[in-house]
This record gives sequence, structure tokens and C-alpha cells, in this order.
Amino acid sequence: MASSLRHFAGPGTIPAAATASGTTCLLRRHTPNFCTFAALRPIRPSPAAAAKPRASPPSVEERKRQPSAAAPLRVGIVGFGNFGQFIAGGVQRQGHAVLAASRSDYSDYCAQHGIRFFKSVDALCEEQPDVLLICSSILSTESVVRAIPFHKLRPDTIVADVLSVKQFPRNLLLEILPPGFGIICTHPMFGPESGKHGWGKLPFVYDKVRVAEGGQAAKCGQFLSIFEQEGCRMVEMSCAEHDWYAAGSQFITHTIGRVLSQLNLKSTPINTKGYESLLQLTNNTVSDSFDLYYGLFMYNINATEQAIYMMTSKAQTSCQFFKQLDNLERAFQKVRQMLYDRLHNLIRKQIMERAPT
Amino acid sequence: MASSLRHFAGPGTIPAAATASGTTCLLRRHTPNFCTFAALRPIRPSPAAAAKPRASPPSVEERKRQPSAAAPLRVGIVGFGNFGQFIAGGVQRQGHAVLAASRSDYSDYCAQHGIRFFKSVDALCEEQPDVLLICSSILSTESVVRAIPFHKLRPDTIVADVLSVKQFPRNLLLEILPPGFGIICTHPMFGPESGKHGWGKLPFVYDKVRVAEGGQAAKCGQFLSIFEQEGCRMVEMSCAEHDWYAAGSQFITHTIGRVLSQLNLKSTPINTKGYESLLQLTNNTVSDSFDLYYGLFMYNINATEQAIYMMTSKAQTSCQFFKQLDNLERAFQKVRQMLYDRLHNLIRKQIMERAPT
Repeated sequence: MASSLRHFAGPGTIPAAATASGTTCLLRRHTPNFCTFAALRPIRPSPAAAAKPRASPPSVEERKRQPSAAAPLRVGIVGFGNFGQFIAGGVQRQGHAVLAASRSDYSDYCAQHGIRFFKSVDALCEEQPDVLLICSSILSTESVVRAIPFHKLRPDTIVADVLSVKQFPRNLLLEILPPGFGIICTHPMFGPESGKHGWGKLPFVYDKVRVAEGGQAAKCGQFLSIFEQEGCRMVEMSCAEHDWYAAGSQFITHTIGRVLSQLNLKSTPINTKGYESLLQLTNNTVSDSFDLYYGLFMYNINATEQAIYMMTSKAQTSCQFFKQLDNLERAFQKVRQMLYDRLHNLIRKQIMERAPT
Repeated sequence: MASSLRHFAGPGTIPAAATASGTTCLLRRHTPNFCTFAALRPIRPSPAAAAKPRASPPSVEERKRQPSAAAPLRVGIVGFGNFGQFIAGGVQRQGHAVLAASRSDYSDYCAQHGIRFFKSVDALCEEQPDVLLICSSILSTESVVRAIPFHKLRPDTIVADVLSVKQFPRNLLLEILPPGFGIICTHPMFGPESGKHGWGKLPFVYDKVRVAEGGQAAKCGQFLSIFEQEGCRMVEMSCAEHDWYAAGSQFITHTIGRVLSQLNLKSTPINTKGYESLLQLTNNTVSDSFDLYYGLFMYNINATEQAIYMMTSKAQTSCQFFKQLDNLERAFQKVRQMLYDRLHNLIRKQIMERAPT
């Protein structure tokens, strides 16, 4: 991993050894005050920052190329694995063009699906897509974004991501992208398994982190309308809020799915609804990579700083994920103990009944 | 519990202390050969046993009372708690009459729902229902059945049950019921929560354990058609097969539900499908009693004999439930260890990178 520990090496609670590099902390800097969560207000950049002017006025040639509000978008997808292809399907169904670049060669797949494939991000960027959608894994996103040749793109390009954590890419994009670029952080909370029968009513979380008024805002609206038109439940929410909720729900879901997948559960002719849902969960989890699970654990502000602190200093801190793992184990032990106790009592009673008085 | 350990005190693997009572073993006697399960053939009584003649020929008065195939059934429900009321709804929707008896007083509820309520099973049996449906808990079923005044019922009455384990009530009913009585063991694999929006496509398992040809078979068909007409997926399966499948699926589902219910999970604005199903599972489990969970554990032939043997002799046996609990814990530990290992490796790498070379 190119970034090593940089993304969670912030000041304050982190031991000196972890902060000695002097590099930027991608998670710490924008940590919200969690006491303010009750109101559920999305965190927005200041109006001044949002309306920040372009680095330079658009050239005549640029103006010519500027699509009208109704013109289809050209969406460049960087990282064209399972999830990138899945999202590309929706983009195409809504009438937009897809351009793709990936480390692996997907030229055959793209040829069959009417998608232009590029062997490098450089080549893709020369085509100057309206939106650059990062579909790499959590672990590789930092190196992928740092390698984008921004100077080849138009200066008002919108960059979006689809990661299952949100503060990390938000802060990464705010740090690295040229100031005129738009930033939309999104999380389609479904995937090739759970969304295989359509995207209707499935939650799509987004945060318009930095979108200038005018053409950029229009293109942003067009991009989000892809998911809206596909029937998603659109949830506008700050990246910080997303990560706070996700820490409490996604991690436990993935953990249970991973634990169950170890048990090799089989379908039976008499599955209850509950058992069906566990089989489904196991199925979905197995099709996700361990890297995703690890990413949820390591790239969420609610876990990482405390986790690294705990692992290096052995302190008892309030890391939410570690707490969740501990709680899960305690809950399991408690349920088992209740069963054992009942059995013990029954046997004791039986022995007492049979003992000579 | 009236029965103490009788229901699993069988010969063979059980220590001498547990079999000294000399009473019948309700689970052991009918244990099938599990090697024959592949063919999934329901286990039936021999044709001779199935067509066993009535203890005495029907009297003229009895013949008068014999309902025609089209006449609605009179279904007497013994045990009128949450589940009994839930099943009564379907019986009534299909045009049959419900009579109910329970330890608790449900006379108000029954008055509101057009059901005749009886304060004792004796009083209910004097009404001579066509079908006596036992809806008591697993733990109380043996004492409930033993207290039924069979002499007050017509000698071809059908007795059915709805327990989540099936070999235990099958053997209990075969042992206790007079020979002319019909026996249908059923398991509606849903409940007030999972079946609240209708019973369509939900599995209904049944085993016509002992049904004589003629009037009894017709009434049996009428009774089963209640569930068929409600849209259930009808699964005819021997009680032994049911328990074998259920041991592998129901127990793990209830265990996960119980463990999760200890964690106090909350719904979020961005639930994934997987998290939704965990919340639903937790909700369903919390509305079930711990007695049901305990009953699944203790009254399934695939667990109880080995469990009692293990608890009394400390031997390592092949009890399926104990194995499942151990596997679940091991799976949990493995997933956690994988996360910890990744984190450790990352920290080690970080330290190595910063150490002077």
C-alpha cells in the first residue's frame, strides 16, 4: 500500500512514532464534532469555497465542447473491476457514454458492451470525460488518485468516487485535486449481488463536497440523476455522517456474513425467512473481497485512529469496531451460557430427583 | 417440567443414571437411519398400521355427527398464546370454526374474534372438535397432551401439533393417543412476525403420521387445505427429516438472532439490504421466547442425547448443536484474527520503514 499509515497518522491521540513523517493526515483534518450529529445536517464547505472561481476562464474551444444540460455525459471510470462494470451498466442505461481504464485488460468486455477501453488512465484522461468516476478498491484509491494526470483534464472536470467509506476519499480529493475540479463523494449502498434485480429503492448516499455553480452544477445534477432515474433512494448526507452510521451497521453486517461463510451453510427444503436472509448475506459477503472488509475497518475515522493507538500503546480506547467485535463475542458467550445453564440445571434436578433422600 | 429427562433418556449412548427410570424414550425409539436421507422419502407407518381399524364401530349417533367432506371443520386449539391466535386467524379465514382452551384467560380476545373460549381442556373436549390442534410450547407439550381427556373425544379425532421440533411430538402422540385417533405433525415455518403480511409461499411442513382411510383422511385433507388455500408452500416430509434439516438451519438462525439482539442494533438512514435482514432477524427472534430457543436445542434428536451424554460424562461427542456453537465461535475468532493480523503487519511495516537502516 503506497500510503502506508499516512491516512490515519494524525496529531493528538496518535503516538509520536506514527506522526513523525510530517505528511498530511487524510482522515483527521476534517473530523467533525460528533456531538452535532443529532441534527443530521450535512456538512458543507463554506459558500465561498463552493463558489470558488475556476483557475482560468474557459477557452473558446472549451466552450464549444461544453455539453448542453441535455447532452449525454461522458463518464470515465477508473478501475473497471466487478463494481466498476456494475455501475457502468446504470450509466449506459441512462443514455450516457462510458470510457474505462483499468490495470487489468477489459478490452474484450468493453468491446461487447459498447464501452471505449483505455489501457492507462493517461490515455483515458486525454479524452477529457465530463466526470471521472473512481471505482478502485479502498486500499488502492490513494495511489490511483495521485497518479491521475489532472493537467490533461478540463479544469472543471467532476471527480466522483463510490467507496464504502467516505471521509477518506473526501479528504484525499480535497487535498489532491486542482481547485476548479468538482468533487462528489458517493456510496451506492448495494452491489452486483444485492442490486442484480434492479436498483429500485436501494440507498444511494452522496455528498456534493465541492460543486461550482453553473455548468459544473448542471453536470453534477445530470450525474446524480443517473441513480435517481434508476430508482435509487437518494440520501444526501455528509461524508462524516455516512461514516458514523456505516461504522455501526456495515461492519457488523460484513462481520456476520464473513463468520457465517466460514460455516459452509447449506440451503434446505424448509428454509425459514430468517435462514434465507442469512444464506443471502453469506452469499453477498463471499462475493465481496476481504480487502473491502479490511477497508471498512481501517479507513473509517471511527476506527482507525483509535485502532492504531490501541495496537501500539495497548491503551483501552473507544475504537468503535474493536468494541463491536468485543460486544459480538460477549453476546455470543452470553447466549451460549444461557443454554448451558439451562442444561446444567436440568441435569442437577434429575440427579437430585434420583438421589436417595 | 413434568417430563424431566424422560424424552431423551434412551438406551445405548446414554449413561446408566439417565435411563434408570425405565420410562419410555420419546425421541430414541423412532430414530431413522440417516443414511437413507438422500432420497428424501417421507417415513410412513406401514399400510397395515395406517389402516388400523377403529377401536369400536361408530354408533348411529356418531354417524349422524360425521361431517360431510364439504362441511366446515371444528378445530379445537389447546394453548391459545401468540402462536395459537395467529394460526386461528388462518383457520377462520378458510371458513372453519375455532374453539380454544388455554391456561390464561383469553375470553375477551375470543369474544372479539368469534371464537368459543373454554377455561379447561376438559370443557373444550366435551364439544368434540374434529381436529385438536396442540399449540402449547415445546416444554409444556408433554404434560398438556398427557392431560387430554381422550375418552370425551370422538374415537376418530385428529390430533395435530405445530411445534418447531417434530420427532418429539410424533413419538409422544403415537405413545399416548388411543389407536383410532389420527395424528398429523405439522410445522408452519413462520410466525406472527414473518407471516404478518400473509402466508403466501411460506413453507408448511407436515407428516401424516397416522391417518385412517375414509372420513379421517377426508378431514385430514380439509385441515391441510387450510394452509394450502392460504398460499403456503406445502412440504410433506417425515418428522425425522424435518429435525435433521432444522438442526442445521433453525438453530443457527435463532442463535445469530439472539446474539444480535444483545447488541441493541439501531436502524440507520442508510441501511443496506444485508443490515435490514439482520435487523429483521433480530426483531423476529426477540418476539420468540427463550423457551422456543431452548426447545430447539433440547428437543431435537440430533442434539439431546449427545448433549446430555457430553454434559454428564465430559466426553467429546458429535452433538450437532454443540458443534455448531463451537464452529460459530471458531469462525468468529478466525475473522477477527485475520483483521488483527492485517493491522499488526501494517504497523510492523510502518515501524520497519522508519527504523534507521
